[in-house]
Amino acid sequence: MSIPDLQKLLADFADRRDWGRFHTPKNLAMALAGEAGELAAEFQWLDPRESAEVMHDPAKAHAVRMEMADVLSYLLRLADVLDVDLDAALREKVAINEGRFPAE
Amino acid sequence: MSIPDLQKLLADFADRRDWGRFHTPKNLAMALAGEAGELAAEFQWLDPRESAEVMHDPAKAHAVRMEMADVLSYLLRLADVLDVDLDAALREKVAINEGRFPAE
Amino acid sequence: MSIPDLQKLLADFADRRDWGRFHTPKNLAMALAGEAGELAAEFQWLDPRESAEVMHDPAKAHAVRMEMADVLSYLLRLADVLDVDLDAALREKVAINEGRFPAE
Amino acid sequence: MSIPDLQKLLADFADRRDWGRFHTPKNLAMALAGEAGELAAEFQWLDPRESAEVMHDPAKAHAVRMEMADVLSYLLRLADVLDVDLDAALREKVAINEGRFPAE
Repeated sequence: MSIPDLQKLLADFADRRDWGRFHTPKNLAMALAGEAGELAAEFQWLDPRESAEVMHDPAKAHAVRMEMADVLSYLLRLADVLDVDLDAALREKVAINEGRFPAE
Repeated sequence: MSIPDLQKLLADFADRRDWGRFHTPKNLAMALAGEAGELAAEFQWLDPRESAEVMHDPAKAHAVRMEMADVLSYLLRLADVLDVDLDAALREKVAINEGRFPAE
Repeated sequence: MSIPDLQKLLADFADRRDWGRFHTPKNLAMALAGEAGELAAEFQWLDPRESAEVMHDPAKAHAVRMEMADVLSYLLRLADVLDVDLDAALREKVAINEGRFPAE
Repeated sequence: MSIPDLQKLLADFADRRDWGRFHTPKNLAMALAGEAGELAAEFQWLDPRESAEVMHDPAKAHAVRMEMADVLSYLLRLADVLDVDLDAALREKVAINEGRFPAE
């Protein structure tokens, strides 16, 4: 699915549960930080080599995928309620970083 | 752009700077948590109404968009190095949540 | 207990479990971010008034206290392995902030 | 200083600036997550050995100490507004963990 289609899927999910009143930008940014913390926790005791092999264990791989989905879902919801075009924002940031970090 | 196209853009950006050795899953998960914290910081002292109007101030709006781009970029890089299909992961998570939180 | 006594308690706890090899500064900083995310999650859907009353519910109050203890324990462990005097660091930061944010 | 004395120092600092209205539990938990993210960012690209030597560079050492002070200050403020005894909470969590993770 495209980013806008995924946003539509999530907006419908929230609407059917009347969760719109909870989905203020502040609350969504806070939920995103919480999920990013949970994703980081999956890697916190791993050394670099172990972190590269984290997907070899099916249960761990599923946990990582679901935490990544949680991060993405709150980011997409936040972009939706703030009317931010994530694709354009990312390309703008990459252009800024091209100037800040010139390639060799 | 599609999610895979954005991932390609970011992978090329990293490759041209020889940043691949820094982009272990552990480091990317940690960078993602850091950026999510910076995004949350944009909202930390706002009340719910102020948070809904955060994009009315152009400078603040730009800061929020760029923090969101940072979060997305590390999430896309992490998905790339772990070979996670974010679109499929999100749809799987939504399906799980349909069961956990039945709509009225 | 004083901060150094709490640090000694935590260091002994870790030593008896041979956890010292996991407690690199990087891993502890990552664990701290994870716990801070879990603490934030306790408040993410609350409005300001509800957040002020969060300790009225005994089960929720216990969860909040235990998440705060987790954050403190990783902060104290990190200070211990980096040989940072947290008391002195906090007083230095307050002195810096006295200059940055003059009181009326 | 003891933990209660540090809390008094921070409460006075906030009171003299009329910041009490911003220091809801929700806002403080969010600020804590933001600072924990900034602290994590100091370590995000370091390998385990580099992270152990992070305090050898005076500028980096100062940045790390100040980020740790920020985390501590929001944790102490949150404990103050929620009337949580951090010392008791930490010892309770250690007692729980003694049961969950028996030492050899």
